[in-house]
Amino acid sequence: MVSKYPAKEHARRAFAHFLEKLPEESQSAFFISGENYELWPYCDQSKPIRQNRYFYYITGCNIPGSHVFYDGGNDKLTLYLPDVDEEDIMWSGLPVSRDEAAAKYDVDEVKFAHEVLADLKAFSYKIYTTDVNQWNKNFESHLIEKDYAFFHGLDEARLIKDDYEIALMRHAAKITDKCHHGVMLATAIETNETHIHAEFMYHALREGSKYQSYDPICCSGPNCSTLHYVKNDDEIPETKHSILIDAGAEWECYASDVTRCFPINGDWTVEHLNIYRAVLRMQQVTMSMIRPGALWDDIHLRAHEILIEEFLKLGIFKSKYSKQEIYESRISARFFPHGLGHLLGMDTHDVGGRPNYEDPDPYLQYLRLRRKLQKGMVLTDEPGIYFSPFLLEDVLKDEKKAKYIDHNVLDKYWYVGGVRIEDDLVITANGFENLTGITSDPAEISEIVKKGLNKNKKCCKLGAKTVTAAVAVFVAGYLFRAWRR
Amino acid sequence: MVSKYPAKEHARRAFAHFLEKLPEESQSAFFISGENYELWPYCDQSKPIRQNRYFYYITGCNIPGSHVFYDGGNDKLTLYLPDVDEEDIMWSGLPVSRDEAAAKYDVDEVKFAHEVLADLKAFSYKIYTTDVNQWNKNFESHLIEKDYAFFHGLDEARLIKDDYEIALMRHAAKITDKCHHGVMLATAIETNETHIHAEFMYHALREGSKYQSYDPICCSGPNCSTLHYVKNDDEIPETKHSILIDAGAEWECYASDVTRCFPINGDWTVEHLNIYRAVLRMQQVTMSMIRPGALWDDIHLRAHEILIEEFLKLGIFKSKYSKQEIYESRISARFFPHGLGHLLGMDTHDVGGRPNYEDPDPYLQYLRLRRKLQKGMVLTDEPGIYFSPFLLEDVLKDEKKAKYIDHNVLDKYWYVGGVRIEDDLVITANGFENLTGITSDPAEISEIVKKGLNKNKKCCKLGAKTVTAAVAVFVAGYLFRAWRR
Repeated sequence: MVSKYPAKEHARRAFAHFLEKLPEESQSAFFISGENYELWPYCDQSKPIRQNRYFYYITGCNIPGSHVFYDGGNDKLTLYLPDVDEEDIMWSGLPVSRDEAAAKYDVDEVKFAHEVLADLKAFSYKIYTTDVNQWNKNFESHLIEKDYAFFHGLDEARLIKDDYEIALMRHAAKITDKCHHGVMLATAIETNETHIHAEFMYHALREGSKYQSYDPICCSGPNCSTLHYVKNDDEIPETKHSILIDAGAEWECYASDVTRCFPINGDWTVEHLNIYRAVLRMQQVTMSMIRPGALWDDIHLRAHEILIEEFLKLGIFKSKYSKQEIYESRISARFFPHGLGHLLGMDTHDVGGRPNYEDPDPYLQYLRLRRKLQKGMVLTDEPGIYFSPFLLEDVLKDEKKAKYIDHNVLDKYWYVGGVRIEDDLVITANGFENLTGITSDPAEISEIVKKGLNKNKKCCKLGAKTVTAAVAVFVAGYLFRAWRR
Repeated sequence: MVSKYPAKEHARRAFAHFLEKLPEESQSAFFISGENYELWPYCDQSKPIRQNRYFYYITGCNIPGSHVFYDGGNDKLTLYLPDVDEEDIMWSGLPVSRDEAAAKYDVDEVKFAHEVLADLKAFSYKIYTTDVNQWNKNFESHLIEKDYAFFHGLDEARLIKDDYEIALMRHAAKITDKCHHGVMLATAIETNETHIHAEFMYHALREGSKYQSYDPICCSGPNCSTLHYVKNDDEIPETKHSILIDAGAEWECYASDVTRCFPINGDWTVEHLNIYRAVLRMQQVTMSMIRPGALWDDIHLRAHEILIEEFLKLGIFKSKYSKQEIYESRISARFFPHGLGHLLGMDTHDVGGRPNYEDPDPYLQYLRLRRKLQKGMVLTDEPGIYFSPFLLEDVLKDEKKAKYIDHNVLDKYWYVGGVRIEDDLVITANGFENLTGITSDPAEISEIVKKGLNKNKKCCKLGAKTVTAAVAVFVAGYLFRAWRR
């Protein structure tokens, strides 16, 4: 493993993919500005900052206000640090020096932001860039903004993760495992969805993960049917028995994205477990299909087949209809409306997936990955089943579709809300490596939750018990001896 | 206490202050757009959102994509909710309805965003607004953007907090108390600055405070000399004995802002305690001067006098120089470079303070409040003393200034880094109410930290100890009885 984030290799690979589309541009350059501090409107506080992923990909640098120039013809990578603001040092401390940056980042040269303009002017060929922004005001521009080939180059490079990136994602996933484990262990003090959120963030931050890959989804009971629920502030009474948490820690700009579900008290109800097992089977069957060359569309559609099989077994779908007829009706899309998974990388929904949100097929419309799998891709496998009144409202009124559903059986399931199980997978030469280590086995999950509940009970009472026990033993001994005398 | 956030009264008060500057505009209106969702560049995830404070002040509404219109002449307040996006419901759940909004917010009418443009067009008088944005593209505008009188009206209204606002700030302060207490109690597991950060956030989030008022500053040892240190990721070995945490929970858009310092193991070193007591005296003396009518400049300057007195006592300043001469040299600004405090409200550095960052006097340049105190203002009292190599570098080289400092004594203090003590105060009719409840008494702080350390030791060993003790007592009793037989 190399010791630095392989920025130079990333720039080279992106440029090579760019030349696939524009071979005549072999002398041109890439120029990308990183994100810079920005104030909230009418306020002296900075907004939270998130590094531009394209910038990070070819620098490994997370310093706000930096820029990068990659001269493709000469294979030369130059990082521009922000100019030093002397007055800011007393507030924010010393900035990274040019030498420190040269030692830390895999670039050929380190300069400062005030040198950008002259360097852009002096370059003789085309410069491809994300945003022209302030630069083109200053000279007769040969800057080409947001070109298709430019993004193609970067996105195709980002699609395949190298060992260094996978190591970062493995670390993010490990932190996420700890966080989910922490959440499951702490249900005794989780009486509101926000407590679940707090527990997850706490463990992540303690491990040095300052940012979440995305807003954590922490929900209970029927709230679990809202796919991107982020309110996270409802009380969790006993009636909201089912918990769903979808959250992932970020590590050095790389994401993890994991969902786990469990019963708040460790005891699965029949319906919750039925759905959980159905989703788990959707995940197990689809995982078994994952290998280079497999088309993600096919794997996703297989998940719908499993859902239909399971619903027929449970009686939610009426057994007088064939699996094929139900499949063709697309009704399972109302119970599993999202895609089976998406690419994962610096972005949670990473680039290069080639989705088609205009696809008329409800099974495929929201599928964020529509390509054949390749070694080095990282993706989520995240089947789900939901009982959303909103999504099922018109289906239940439409006799053509409602006929497949046994309402009496369905009615038993609303309280579950929804179940999703999501793991992060790296495609390998022969299959995949699962980065996610936290168990999804329902019995093991139950054990963890109960262990946490018992530990908590013990902790609260241990002090009192210790004293009582010691005193009791002592007194008993004394009385026994007194009696014998 | 009224049951709704008093938006209407806020709009009225802001408009009345506006008319102080433009009395001829009594038929005009205010129009403000709240913040809306925005994606991170080249990414499908939304940036974190923070409601526009001017918008919140006259609505109490935190729904992204809303707008508000206050017709001053007719005293009519209209809230515009974002238009309903049907496709988003499956992802995000049902939005607030018009009726729910009418019941929840203190406004005269609730409409939807698509109705804004026609309403703006139909209004016959001038409309004062924060940002013209998209609106003026659509009609011959009578929108007046960012007018001085408009901001004067809003800022003067926001300057004086009403009972409802003070109740919100009291709640924010209470959460912050719990968080600081939690941090002090948990030093046993705080071996990195990020653990302090995690502990604070955890308690805040558990109490339902999802946003911090500002990025928490969690530092140890010499890092405490960087005023707005937010790196929060250094290890805390024994040599970095001093901890400084400046953090405040937010509650319904209202801030708290509290700093506490403590020794990581509960035992103050001589130098740390010397500086702590000096800062505490700066705070106590300045607090005693706080009442309506007092000029904040005078109170701030008094803090410098106390610092000089304390440094003369400690021998950091040489006693052969008079307090007055040292004061005139302004050298204490290198040890206490920031202002004594600032207004606090929806913004951490709240509006209406009238600072003058061009002031040539180094004592006053960074003072964010330059006004006489009035009942209903909320402000921080936050003296500090820092040993910043960066701030003292040129002073120590300049004989005219260095002569006041005893280098040998100063050298004993570098390791402390810095101390700041910060409380949130509401100005009352006769003085102030301190919203901050967490102790700043050094002996009490020491006690809390040690209680946490002991509790932790006990917790870890309690299980083993219980068994050992019970077995020992039992065996002893048995042996004793056996021996007697």
